[in-house]
Amino acid sequence: MNDSLQPRLRILLGHAIPIGPGKAELLEHIAKTGSISAAARCMNMSYRRAWLLVDTMNQCFKSPLVETATGGKGGGGARISDFGREVLRRYREMEDKAAQAVADDMAYFSSLLVAAPD
Amino acid sequence: MNDSLQPRLRILLGHAIPIGPGKAELLEHIAKTGSISAAARCMNMSYRRAWLLVDTMNQCFKSPLVETATGGKGGGGARISDFGREVLRRYREMEDKAAQAVADDMAYFSSLLVAAPD
Repeated sequence: MNDSLQPRLRILLGHAIPIGPGKAELLEHIAKTGSISAAARCMNMSYRRAWLLVDTMNQCFKSPLVETATGGKGGGGARISDFGREVLRRYREMEDKAAQAVADDMAYFSSLLVAAPD
Repeated sequence: MNDSLQPRLRILLGHAIPIGPGKAELLEHIAKTGSISAAARCMNMSYRRAWLLVDTMNQCFKSPLVETATGGKGGGGARISDFGREVLRRYREMEDKAAQAVADDMAYFSSLLVAAPD
């Protein structure tokens, strides 16, 4: 199946999105790089935007998903908490379950679409 | 379960979204009102934005989901094609399947979130 036909899950909390595809990817990059600014660069995203996404996640969940060390803007490093790691794992698991549940339908939809542009 | 915790499915075609929550809702309003401009008003959306969403859907799928009559901007009426009705039905069905597949996980995530703002 075409990768672009995977379902994308967003969880909504009022008008906020505690976790979705972009935030999950950001969490993964923070886990790898130990830095919000490095993670932002991986995603070609401004530090400010990455910081806002982290802030939304941390505000929406009962415990922070990302912990930042002191050191000012981009200076102190960041790490994903054990709780954040668990949320990320469960989110990816949920994506897999949803993808499996709709795999046949996605194949059907794929057959109805024109070819993707390069 | 909180309505706001339903998974939201988007199908991607390259960078375009042939169908997702907003487009599905727009299709439903067009089916009810017989007009893109009336459907746009239902969603508090500009006519231009609604027209662009319809155009994206029609461009991404092999057949048009929405057929417009002549009569100029907002003047000629619009109807959802049989094909569009079938796509919408399958999309809603797919949402239901995905929601069922992740219902337990959504309940778990719900328990991890702070209360939604009013």
